[in-house]
Amino acid sequence: MSPASHFSESERELLYRVMRERRDMRHFIADSTIDNEVLRRILDAAHMAPSVGLMQPWRFIQIKSPARRESIAALVDQERQETAKLLAEREREFLRLKVEGIRECAALIAVVQAPDDGTVFGRRTMPAEMALCSTASAIQNMWLASRVENLGMGWVSLFDPKALAELLNCPESTKPVALLCIGPVKAFYAKPMLEQLGWRQGKPLDEFLFEDGWPESGP
Amino acid sequence: MSPASHFSESERELLYRVMRERRDMRHFIADSTIDNEVLRRILDAAHMAPSVGLMQPWRFIQIKSPARRESIAALVDQERQETAKLLAEREREFLRLKVEGIRECAALIAVVQAPDDGTVFGRRTMPAEMALCSTASAIQNMWLASRVENLGMGWVSLFDPKALAELLNCPESTKPVALLCIGPVKAFYAKPMLEQLGWRQGKPLDEFLFEDGWPESGP
Repeated sequence: MSPASHFSESERELLYRVMRERRDMRHFIADSTIDNEVLRRILDAAHMAPSVGLMQPWRFIQIKSPARRESIAALVDQERQETAKLLAEREREFLRLKVEGIRECAALIAVVQAPDDGTVFGRRTMPAEMALCSTASAIQNMWLASRVENLGMGWVSLFDPKALAELLNCPESTKPVALLCIGPVKAFYAKPMLEQLGWRQGKPLDEFLFEDGWPESGP
Repeated sequence: MSPASHFSESERELLYRVMRERRDMRHFIADSTIDNEVLRRILDAAHMAPSVGLMQPWRFIQIKSPARRESIAALVDQERQETAKLLAEREREFLRLKVEGIRECAALIAVVQAPDDGTVFGRRTMPAEMALCSTASAIQNMWLASRVENLGMGWVSLFDPKALAELLNCPESTKPVALLCIGPVKAFYAKPMLEQLGWRQGKPLDEFLFEDGWPESGP
């Protein structure tokens, strides 16, 4: 086994550049494709993620059937309407946003939480949370991997998990948590799309950093 | 605003190398330190993570007080015993594993889920899950950032979240989800520590990859 690498300053800066330029994409080039080997590298990146007690609770369903993709798109459309209603005075503004690229993206992957395998290590007190965090780590790896492959990725969570599970024949003990749209994009947003369109602005890190305990007047 | 970068093949390979060599570390060099600017870069990486509806639900509490660190270590010791009991026939094997580096690591950071800010965008159907996934993405960024800073990081989840919340004065609407140990290490494990010590072996990605739906006989 070769000894682990030492990373240089320029290598470090490169990682930070990838993180800085990663975007949650919703605009894709329609009718584009991804090479199988590229998609495989992105999925391999997911599988390199850490998992609590090594349980690897992530499952990936690649949607290849156009009919199935269309049914998923319809499900997301429905949830978009439900969300719009709840947003009340921002309903129209929300409906103008492009919130998903299900129909146009080159590859569509549903990520599903596996049935609980009973792992106790590291999750006696927070079993569902820790399994879910493992899957989210895998998805974050895919996001960064897509970016260095010069592809966009978007995590769509606008769906009813029960309805999606039914559509994908997922057993009751599983739960879909993400629809990942991956594919070529015309351009990456310069800032998070929600900031760019004035929907919401992120806050600086310093507001979220505390010492030794939660502040008396913390956010 | 400068246009987004194109990443080359060698840059892509570098990211995959970082992911491949990232480890969940439990062995740290005692009495070591981390420069403030290095720790800041790791936290900046966290803050570059995506979040559902841009809610940025992560909060970081750096533990600077030695007394507070010791109380946290005691809490983790207690949970380690509870876990051991549950593991029954593997109890002794478990107790021989080093499962955390709370006392030795250079920097200890508690990550806490912020109170729900009511964000509806992308989380009408799975509000707690999507907020938690955002925080996990931020932690995964920290893991990769630590690795390129040539530092180890370990995510300790062996604690009772209510007891830790009390210790850190966290309001009831918040939830600690991670104790992150970060710092210099003598060496990175060649494989995940749990594999190296024969506790458990990871499975190949192909067992977790499906097409168009959950397989009839899927894991």
